[in-house]
Amino acid sequence: MMILPALLLLAASATTEISRAPSEIAAAAPASDWIAIPPEDLLVVDLAPDGRGPPRRVVVQLMPPPFGQGWIANIRALAAAHWWDGTSINRVQDNYVVQWGDPNSEDKAKAKPLPAGLKTMPQRAYVARVGPTSAVRIAASPYAQAEGFFKGWPIATRGHVAWPVHCYAMVGVGRDMPPDTGSGAELYAVIGQAPRHLDRNIALIGRVVDGIDAMSALPRGTEPLGFYRTAEERIPILRTRIGSDLPTAEQPHFEYLSTESASFAAYADARANRRDAFFITPAGGADVCNIPVPVRAARR
Amino acid sequence: MMILPALLLLAASATTEISRAPSEIAAAAPASDWIAIPPEDLLVVDLAPDGRGPPRRVVVQLMPPPFGQGWIANIRALAAAHWWDGTSINRVQDNYVVQWGDPNSEDKAKAKPLPAGLKTMPQRAYVARVGPTSAVRIAASPYAQAEGFFKGWPIATRGHVAWPVHCYAMVGVGRDMPPDTGSGAELYAVIGQAPRHLDRNIALIGRVVDGIDAMSALPRGTEPLGFYRTAEERIPILRTRIGSDLPTAEQPHFEYLSTESASFAAYADARANRRDAFFITPAGGADVCNIPVPVRAARR
Repeated sequence: MMILPALLLLAASATTEISRAPSEIAAAAPASDWIAIPPEDLLVVDLAPDGRGPPRRVVVQLMPPPFGQGWIANIRALAAAHWWDGTSINRVQDNYVVQWGDPNSEDKAKAKPLPAGLKTMPQRAYVARVGPTSAVRIAASPYAQAEGFFKGWPIATRGHVAWPVHCYAMVGVGRDMPPDTGSGAELYAVIGQAPRHLDRNIALIGRVVDGIDAMSALPRGTEPLGFYRTAEERIPILRTRIGSDLPTAEQPHFEYLSTESASFAAYADARANRRDAFFITPAGGADVCNIPVPVRAARR
Repeated sequence: MMILPALLLLAASATTEISRAPSEIAAAAPASDWIAIPPEDLLVVDLAPDGRGPPRRVVVQLMPPPFGQGWIANIRALAAAHWWDGTSINRVQDNYVVQWGDPNSEDKAKAKPLPAGLKTMPQRAYVARVGPTSAVRIAASPYAQAEGFFKGWPIATRGHVAWPVHCYAMVGVGRDMPPDTGSGAELYAVIGQAPRHLDRNIALIGRVVDGIDAMSALPRGTEPLGFYRTAEERIPILRTRIGSDLPTAEQPHFEYLSTESASFAAYADARANRRDAFFITPAGGADVCNIPVPVRAARR
């Protein structure tokens, strides 16, 4: 059942967190409040080096059920087929998105064939019903009745319907005009102010948990919508794999702060009401995208 | 008098704008709805070339009264003294800010002396009272009683008090711990999700109206807070001038869409309720930072 009463953001433990910064609260959380992300749920995107260093790695955490699972099944199939190897980042639009996939996808003669058996996902899959959400809830939003967190992810709700939201570093599925045309082969990551108008208009399937700056710091494209003008400007994708398909030593290990934990409630409260030394006037609130869920490399 | 009733975002002309994209609405606005920005109110920051092209220019529009005027007076004095020439961009923190000024400002022995006569601005100058605001108002915000626009700028309000908000590309005044320590010599621009927790905690003095990507696409610094580790990583600032102090042929000319115009109301409504072809589910609202005020080069 969907439970999201219209409460202002308020954490029970707020009064105990007088002067710690949000990052300090997260760092001090007990190990039991951190949840390991299985390598099976990580998509590893290796970009060509830029001449200044080694290949750049971007790691995307895939969303849990009930969100985006049809597209995520497609993405697993595409990674298993090594489909993205040799594709590229083709679009970088400032304060908006970085987009990658087949640069020739619009040209039937040159488009890279997709693996057989990919699902066609309907528009209704852009939303879902979810079970109990975290105690951190934000009622005052222009976008939804309420916003909050579900199993580590920012969501918005209206009635019984919930959907993931386009916060910074979230990853979605590019599509053509008809809502069911996104396979998952064309992906984008948010690199600016949360484009919340895309919520429920495009499917979200995950978020970049490591290496977002390998995308956000790329040169912006000069064509309309930030597409690169020339093939040379595109950033080659060397390899894309599900984390568990990589050699053991190369597998990525990350963990996130449980959004159902007291630590997260205190962290969120501190994001909304900074009391650490630099701050003089606490904001009194925070939008869901200004409370990024802490993710870190897991100690092994 | 401050007038910001608790209305949801709604433009009178909404029903006439069925299918145009926000950018199309702005482009179709009559010339009379566009307001020229005097070169006197533009700060031109020329960065060293990056080896791929000519010097990179960033143009900052300074805020109108009653916001930030003390710091802006300092900024005019600093530009007149050519103080920024030879300083650098020293910090690029992903999804947060780009910061520039004297890289040695923390080291009394090496710090570049400031011009005499700069004002010391008190914390109370972080907020102001304003006259009538635009008809575009957003009531549902976790950050304020209401949000809206004043003479082309996004603001938030609580009671009679108003303050400019930290949207993407807004420019603020770096400071040390005491709230009155920011002179305007150390500036930053927002390059990520609006860090609204900085509102009323740091002074805002303007916004980047051209060339933000020359800052947002810079390599991120690897030291804490995104500071560059080495002097070589810093991006030299060749020259900073008030626009009207440049040779006539070099003076910048921009204009913004009046936030008091019917065109802006229609634009804002379309940002909140996309009805152009790609969209299937209008958001039903928008936060103030997701309604960027249109600015363009002025035809001459």
